[in-house]
Amino acid sequence: MGMNQFLQSLSDLETINRAPGYFKFEQHSVAAHSFKVAEVAQFLGDVEEQAGHDINWRLLYEKSLNHDYTERFIGDIKTPVKYATPQLRTMLADVEKSLTANFIENEIPTQFQAAYARRLGEGKDDSLEGQILSVADKVDLLYESFGEIQKGNPEPVYMSIYRESLATILKFKQMACVQYFLSAVLPEMLAADFSDRQKLAELTSDLLKEKQA
Amino acid sequence: MGMNQFLQSLSDLETINRAPGYFKFEQHSVAAHSFKVAEVAQFLGDVEEQAGHDINWRLLYEKSLNHDYTERFIGDIKTPVKYATPQLRTMLADVEKSLTANFIENEIPTQFQAAYARRLGEGKDDSLEGQILSVADKVDLLYESFGEIQKGNPEPVYMSIYRESLATILKFKQMACVQYFLSAVLPEMLAADFSDRQKLAELTSDLLKEKQA
Amino acid sequence: MGMNQFLQSLSDLETINRAPGYFKFEQHSVAAHSFKVAEVAQFLGDVEEQAGHDINWRLLYEKSLNHDYTERFIGDIKTPVKYATPQLRTMLADVEKSLTANFIENEIPTQFQAAYARRLGEGKDDSLEGQILSVADKVDLLYESFGEIQKGNPEPVYMSIYRESLATILKFKQMACVQYFLSAVLPEMLAADFSDRQKLAELTSDLLKEKQA
Amino acid sequence: MGMNQFLQSLSDLETINRAPGYFKFEQHSVAAHSFKVAEVAQFLGDVEEQAGHDINWRLLYEKSLNHDYTERFIGDIKTPVKYATPQLRTMLADVEKSLTANFIENEIPTQFQAAYARRLGEGKDDSLEGQILSVADKVDLLYESFGEIQKGNPEPVYMSIYRESLATILKFKQMACVQYFLSAVLPEMLAADFSDRQKLAELTSDLLKEKQA
Amino acid sequence: MGMNQFLQSLSDLETINRAPGYFKFEQHSVAAHSFKVAEVAQFLGDVEEQAGHDINWRLLYEKSLNHDYTERFIGDIKTPVKYATPQLRTMLADVEKSLTANFIENEIPTQFQAAYARRLGEGKDDSLEGQILSVADKVDLLYESFGEIQKGNPEPVYMSIYRESLATILKFKQMACVQYFLSAVLPEMLAADFSDRQKLAELTSDLLKEKQA
Amino acid sequence: MGMNQFLQSLSDLETINRAPGYFKFEQHSVAAHSFKVAEVAQFLGDVEEQAGHDINWRLLYEKSLNHDYTERFIGDIKTPVKYATPQLRTMLADVEKSLTANFIENEIPTQFQAAYARRLGEGKDDSLEGQILSVADKVDLLYESFGEIQKGNPEPVYMSIYRESLATILKFKQMACVQYFLSAVLPEMLAADFSDRQKLAELTSDLLKEKQA
Repeated sequence: MGMNQFLQSLSDLETINRAPGYFKFEQHSVAAHSFKVAEVAQFLGDVEEQAGHDINWRLLYEKSLNHDYTERFIGDIKTPVKYATPQLRTMLADVEKSLTANFIENEIPTQFQAAYARRLGEGKDDSLEGQILSVADKVDLLYESFGEIQKGNPEPVYMSIYRESLATILKFKQMACVQYFLSAVLPEMLAADFSDRQKLAELTSDLLKEKQA
Repeated sequence: MGMNQFLQSLSDLETINRAPGYFKFEQHSVAAHSFKVAEVAQFLGDVEEQAGHDINWRLLYEKSLNHDYTERFIGDIKTPVKYATPQLRTMLADVEKSLTANFIENEIPTQFQAAYARRLGEGKDDSLEGQILSVADKVDLLYESFGEIQKGNPEPVYMSIYRESLATILKFKQMACVQYFLSAVLPEMLAADFSDRQKLAELTSDLLKEKQA
Repeated sequence: MGMNQFLQSLSDLETINRAPGYFKFEQHSVAAHSFKVAEVAQFLGDVEEQAGHDINWRLLYEKSLNHDYTERFIGDIKTPVKYATPQLRTMLADVEKSLTANFIENEIPTQFQAAYARRLGEGKDDSLEGQILSVADKVDLLYESFGEIQKGNPEPVYMSIYRESLATILKFKQMACVQYFLSAVLPEMLAADFSDRQKLAELTSDLLKEKQA
Repeated sequence: MGMNQFLQSLSDLETINRAPGYFKFEQHSVAAHSFKVAEVAQFLGDVEEQAGHDINWRLLYEKSLNHDYTERFIGDIKTPVKYATPQLRTMLADVEKSLTANFIENEIPTQFQAAYARRLGEGKDDSLEGQILSVADKVDLLYESFGEIQKGNPEPVYMSIYRESLATILKFKQMACVQYFLSAVLPEMLAADFSDRQKLAELTSDLLKEKQA
Repeated sequence: MGMNQFLQSLSDLETINRAPGYFKFEQHSVAAHSFKVAEVAQFLGDVEEQAGHDINWRLLYEKSLNHDYTERFIGDIKTPVKYATPQLRTMLADVEKSLTANFIENEIPTQFQAAYARRLGEGKDDSLEGQILSVADKVDLLYESFGEIQKGNPEPVYMSIYRESLATILKFKQMACVQYFLSAVLPEMLAADFSDRQKLAELTSDLLKEKQA
Repeated sequence: MGMNQFLQSLSDLETINRAPGYFKFEQHSVAAHSFKVAEVAQFLGDVEEQAGHDINWRLLYEKSLNHDYTERFIGDIKTPVKYATPQLRTMLADVEKSLTANFIENEIPTQFQAAYARRLGEGKDDSLEGQILSVADKVDLLYESFGEIQKGNPEPVYMSIYRESLATILKFKQMACVQYFLSAVLPEMLAADFSDRQKLAELTSDLLKEKQA
């Protein structure tokens, strides 16, 4: 029982897909999602810092990188189940805490247990870093749903995911990083150029005229 | 709101993988698992019938075919979570029941609601058909773990799954179909021929001798 | 030679894709198709029963669940080959029958041979259950082609598959279940909401107004 | 109706897998197989030429590159079906011929029809180039089955495929290229080094000693 | 060290994808691309021959089939890197040449080395066959990008790839095969029928009228 | 031109596979690799800190998370190419620097350019954090090659990758984190229990005895 167990288990997160049964055009593993959320959090941290707020960068990276590791032993519990009753939500949170404590006690060597207790605990607390994580998690989900919509996936579920992500981001609308995201990133995303047949025909005809002239 | 919703949703079960993060060599969708469990149940039903027990075949097929449909809106809750405390288990079962009831009320036309309440409810009851379903579900899981072990996957988790499946099957060891499985199917599975380098070299040399003679 | 062979072979049907080279957005295995056809047949059986017709449910499940198992040793013979001449069609049907008989004799234990001869034989006969299977098989194919068209696949072959499936279903238009499908399911499928950029922009702007107000 | 149809269809061959349901570790598309057979034929042609035989290289490349194109509209008919009776075999060959003729007439412009009639016809004739194609097709199949056996796939079907491929190659054992394959290539393939735990532990311990010394 | 090494390595080209990170709907392996380029070159060769030019068919097939084999040990160097400075381009070409020479010396038996030096060298020279290869390589890339655009992939990178492919083809616009491609193939590709919802609804309604009349 | 471009591009790293053509059993995307390297670096940082060295955690996370982002526009240049001559290596490094500078100037808004110049620059410098990154990158590669060897992949290339990774790690053997890895992690990895047939048969027979007793 040492860190080999933990290090080897990272590879499991490469094979667990997010929201199984939903994404049709692109699959996203928990490992890749964790990478993207850490990248988004890093950018949101930049904005907050430039707005004059102190960022505990170690905490921000730690929270975002590790925030979904426990999905490995908890599994993917759908939102309607998780939020069915306040009592169930509390109870599930308790079980997650106790399974995580168990995991740390049994699979992490003593000298690293305190660090992993912090890393694998609930990261979305009221600290500035916890709030940035909450936003970053939804920004990635918003991009994931946009990726499907933009590629022409017609199923209304992506609209729901997009709406729900954006609504959660808006709950933090007093934050500098959310203001920046809404005013400078989101409009750019929505304005992105779409390739289509019409443009293809024009491009071809332009090239032919120009080159054959 | 009519049956189109339900029929189109069947395709979602093709994209939800069982035990994400575990199987490395072969992935199994919930749709394919449901097919295989129904096939296994059909065979176990044959054995029970030949042993003189009455089988309600409609019920047996119905139970096995539909037993995992609700995974679509419940998700994949890992066993240690589900069984953490008796209270949580009861509460999760209640939530599953109420989400299923909701789904039926909102997405199934009135005239079919009674049928789907029966089909999507808990199938593993004390009836002979419910017990056969319990066994068939584990027989498929046992074959799934054997598929990995046999292909050389060294991770000990398959041994655990194999052991747990077999242990559950053994709980029903008084059933004629389990007796048959243990005495006539399992030994055959374990005796299955393994191809290897040694045999490959011999086969090649035999063929060369024979044909070039 | 016992049932292990048959049970283990079920997994092969998970890796055989239907109509290879056609579906681009979603692949469908023979195992998953069999599951879906059995689910569709179950629903069509409900409609027939409510219309006052007796359903032999055991037969209906058995036919639909097992109707493509022999694809494992027959392979995927394209329709234009199969129907090239009446003589060839007869001959291929004879070969399929004899290969199936062979398989049952060599791989199924004696006491189960009669059951599998029935299960693996031609299911689409003139019985009510055989006709429901014919319809269910095409309803699933129609949904499979619709899945591609709806996701924006422009290749005309899906239109042909859709048309051919619907045309076959219409051959059974005197059946209560087909009447129900045409009047209550198909229109719902065609009316399904499509997500698009325009709607995305509106939703975003609505949310922003509402939440930032 | 022009060559666009044909050129665009090449991409279909990228999505048709060979022997669906058999290969577990590596899938092989018809497009990739065609590439490999042409490469193998090129090498076998070298050997024949060095042995003093005249090679019609244009014919050899043409035959090997195009030999499976018609699988696109014929499908994958399993060997036991194809060879069930001499009469069926003849009839299937006739249908293939007539479907190919049809395809050429309807989808290939007049000035290229003669070339494609030659290219899409049966390539495995008695010419030296036809015989090389017969051997090359089986050499690739032999490597495909070896790829599974070498990676530890225990299912006996690969042994059968390996044996059948080698047996067919041996039918041409009077050819210089087959002599070379048997004496200089096959032994090398069978002697290929296998990595294993034992070696891994030794390598690690050697490296540690050497570098930490 | 013999041809086994080379023959077994062909399978590696089945697992190397072209332009990783770009194609979203369809992946193309180097093996499948090589097959398609050889098929396109074969067709372009037909056109040139009918226009009265002599084709060295052996050379044309050899060049097109083998033109990307060295990607196995060179890797996928992005265009902006490759063309950053004339000096770097020359230096990379030198390294490719020397790695190829090395490979041939170490992995190809002496009697085949001359042939593979020719086959694995730069194929896109000023000969008619080298020019056809340059065109064929871009025709396949043009079809690959069209495949994404046509399926609704909105990312502008495909437009760029399409434009760059067409621009390169136009550099050879004096060739008979390019003239034919521009006048007889490209318009057909752009005119290809797109399936859409509107047409689906009409087809359904027509079928229903006709069959239920 | 704003951060949308950068954020959306993160998804491209999910579709770029590492070492294409090498890994057969498990594919690793650049995104997932970046996640794992950051996790490994976090653990190695713990060890260094406990050994009394100061860690700049912000720098360590930043370096490890972003160290392969530029692969998106550089591509995957194989090691023998990169290291062919010192001159080429220098020149490639210069091109990478200038492409990165270009990218930052054109795709990153002014106020974030300094941060991304630091993040996308060469991370493996002589600082403690740079050295930890060098080790972490190879620890992940070592686990990736072990994953193939352990699953029975016989190709000698994994042994080479394993050996080369370990040799690079050993270059840093004076570091506390490398000492810990060699003495406490590596032995555990090599001792990992392998499941096999023998154990399967024993487990089955034990379970049968125990439960049927």
